[in-house]
Amino acid sequence: MANSKLPAGVQDVLPRECSILTGLKLKLQKKFSLAGFSPVLSAGLEYYDTFSGSENALPEEKMFKMTDTDGKLLVLRPDTTLSIARIAATKLGQDRARLSYFADKYDLERAGGLTSREIYQAGVECLGEEGAFSDAQAIAFAIECLKETGLKDFIIDIGHVGYFKGLLEESGLTPNAAEGVRACINRKDTMNAERLLQKAGVKEDALNNILALPALFGGAEILSEAEKLTKNACALGAVSHLKEIDRLLVQMGYEGYVSYDLGMIKPLSYYSGIVFSGLVKDLGAPVLSGGRYDNLADAFGKHMPAVGFAMGLKRILVALERQGALPEEQKPLVIVAEKGKEAEWYRAFLEKTSRGERVRLSALTGEEGANKEREEGFEVLYMGGNA
Amino acid sequence: MANSKLPAGVQDVLPRECSILTGLKLKLQKKFSLAGFSPVLSAGLEYYDTFSGSENALPEEKMFKMTDTDGKLLVLRPDTTLSIARIAATKLGQDRARLSYFADKYDLERAGGLTSREIYQAGVECLGEEGAFSDAQAIAFAIECLKETGLKDFIIDIGHVGYFKGLLEESGLTPNAAEGVRACINRKDTMNAERLLQKAGVKEDALNNILALPALFGGAEILSEAEKLTKNACALGAVSHLKEIDRLLVQMGYEGYVSYDLGMIKPLSYYSGIVFSGLVKDLGAPVLSGGRYDNLADAFGKHMPAVGFAMGLKRILVALERQGALPEEQKPLVIVAEKGKEAEWYRAFLEKTSRGERVRLSALTGEEGANKEREEGFEVLYMGGNA
Repeated sequence: MANSKLPAGVQDVLPRECSILTGLKLKLQKKFSLAGFSPVLSAGLEYYDTFSGSENALPEEKMFKMTDTDGKLLVLRPDTTLSIARIAATKLGQDRARLSYFADKYDLERAGGLTSREIYQAGVECLGEEGAFSDAQAIAFAIECLKETGLKDFIIDIGHVGYFKGLLEESGLTPNAAEGVRACINRKDTMNAERLLQKAGVKEDALNNILALPALFGGAEILSEAEKLTKNACALGAVSHLKEIDRLLVQMGYEGYVSYDLGMIKPLSYYSGIVFSGLVKDLGAPVLSGGRYDNLADAFGKHMPAVGFAMGLKRILVALERQGALPEEQKPLVIVAEKGKEAEWYRAFLEKTSRGERVRLSALTGEEGANKEREEGFEVLYMGGNA
Repeated sequence: MANSKLPAGVQDVLPRECSILTGLKLKLQKKFSLAGFSPVLSAGLEYYDTFSGSENALPEEKMFKMTDTDGKLLVLRPDTTLSIARIAATKLGQDRARLSYFADKYDLERAGGLTSREIYQAGVECLGEEGAFSDAQAIAFAIECLKETGLKDFIIDIGHVGYFKGLLEESGLTPNAAEGVRACINRKDTMNAERLLQKAGVKEDALNNILALPALFGGAEILSEAEKLTKNACALGAVSHLKEIDRLLVQMGYEGYVSYDLGMIKPLSYYSGIVFSGLVKDLGAPVLSGGRYDNLADAFGKHMPAVGFAMGLKRILVALERQGALPEEQKPLVIVAEKGKEAEWYRAFLEKTSRGERVRLSALTGEEGANKEREEGFEVLYMGGNA
């Protein structure tokens, strides 16, 4: 017997769920195309040092690695944004590009609940652009895409890595200690953040500012609060940029769809400006994640400031299910023939499908076959002797 | 700097090609759905012994292998049909299923030309059905799918493993020797086949019949020729089955789309009945490959006779390109605003996309931005002071 089990954290998508997933992809594909994005698909296997060979390296423990027949180390696609930055920098010959993708990425770390090791993503990247205009249209498009999926009660939560970076400058923390503090702040764990900051001997003013971060979330009013906390130029620049984005989003009509969170500091080292997450009520993990990464393509020899986001398609399905928003299953009409009626049987199939009707040709024959199909809940068209 | 090269045999699909690939997938998806197939997606990573643990094992040297964190041996999807048989046998709880898929599979062996190590496939599997009716509708649907892609001058070439199996019975060849002869016959290399048969001491009658196989191709008339060559029951059963399929295909109106080839003996050990290939003029490799595999699901604990086929999407694109049948590239309209006109800029975008127009919001601003877009060949809608 062959092994019929699956490794931990990967999954088969069975027909009912796969139909819904396919429908979701279709909607997003159309949305991406109408908004002027061009699809792109990076190779599913790449060299390990494509993802490890720069200051924006991905953590080694997150990559599925294997050795090629020539002895070189390969990885299973661990990140799509980095691959698209590689493509844009080395293969397109353009200074700007709006690209979209549907791709699976893989994460070696074991996980449970809403976190899988095989992640179906749909996303867009706007390369070669910068400024509040570019950021605001990316966030607006994220909102439009989530609306398109049929989700209700979602919000785009917006932060900026510059604010935390500014506070870090003031604190004098080493990069290693800073990463520990970042992780604590990002999960709103002020107790451990405080312990780390005290251990590193950070002065009281700077320490208090960093510990204030987890509470700096809410409407646009928190931006003015954040402005009062610090005199650091980098931090103030970040707030003023967020204020301009907020002004644009209000103009675009999205006031009710966004919130701000200066304590959201994502682990991926490549974000350099705004970061944002799509959050849905009653789901404990973001359905969308994005941000600005101005220096990512530099590692491939070209400077292309960029902003983009990815949606987690499985999580969106879970959220839609919890919101009771999944479409009903539709069974095809089944055509059964008695022997000798094959020509009629097939002609009926061609006619109906050409009119857009969903029809299945049964491989069962005769009255007996028709009854079996009916027993399984299908509506049957029977091509019998007098048909 | 990060490595920006790709491993041998895998590829990025750049925007122009990816648009066409996306369009092709959309057409096939619709075709599959209308014909009553339900989509399914197997996990991208599976255990090695799912593919090696039965008599239908895939060759070890064709699988990308890696070790999981728990020490178990994983493979990157090496075959989709086997995974779908696993799903149907263990997860669907139905005796019959018509399933479709879009999946990438990977082949560790180095290759060149039209053969890639990363293969984009679209395919269908009809599980839990048998008989000429089932085989004929699968072949008819293969023809309809290739028509849907826009290909011209293609043919479905049909064989049957039973004929070769019958001749083998007569020859008394060992399984190992038989595999060598199979490979020679499949590439129409009679010289080496003869050498192997003589070395194995096969008698003249049986030897001559096997050496006649490479010439047994053409219209339905070769089936009658093949019938005269042997008295073996298995071989004669295969021919009589092919004659019934031909009768059905003629009834369905596909006489001009099929040919027969009893020398087509595919390497995959799991085929048990008819085998077929979609061949396009001027392309040196099949764009479609399929057949009947009645015992594949047995390894997963359930007997489900089945027939199915897969299309190689990259090869179809190459064939379409050679036939001059690729669609033209369409650039989106670009909307550029001067600062302060963001609301109008965004309203125009929403209006046009909601009408199905393809539009890109430029992140460039002002007359200068508009001119830059025009220089790059885009049609521009400018939202200026008097707009």
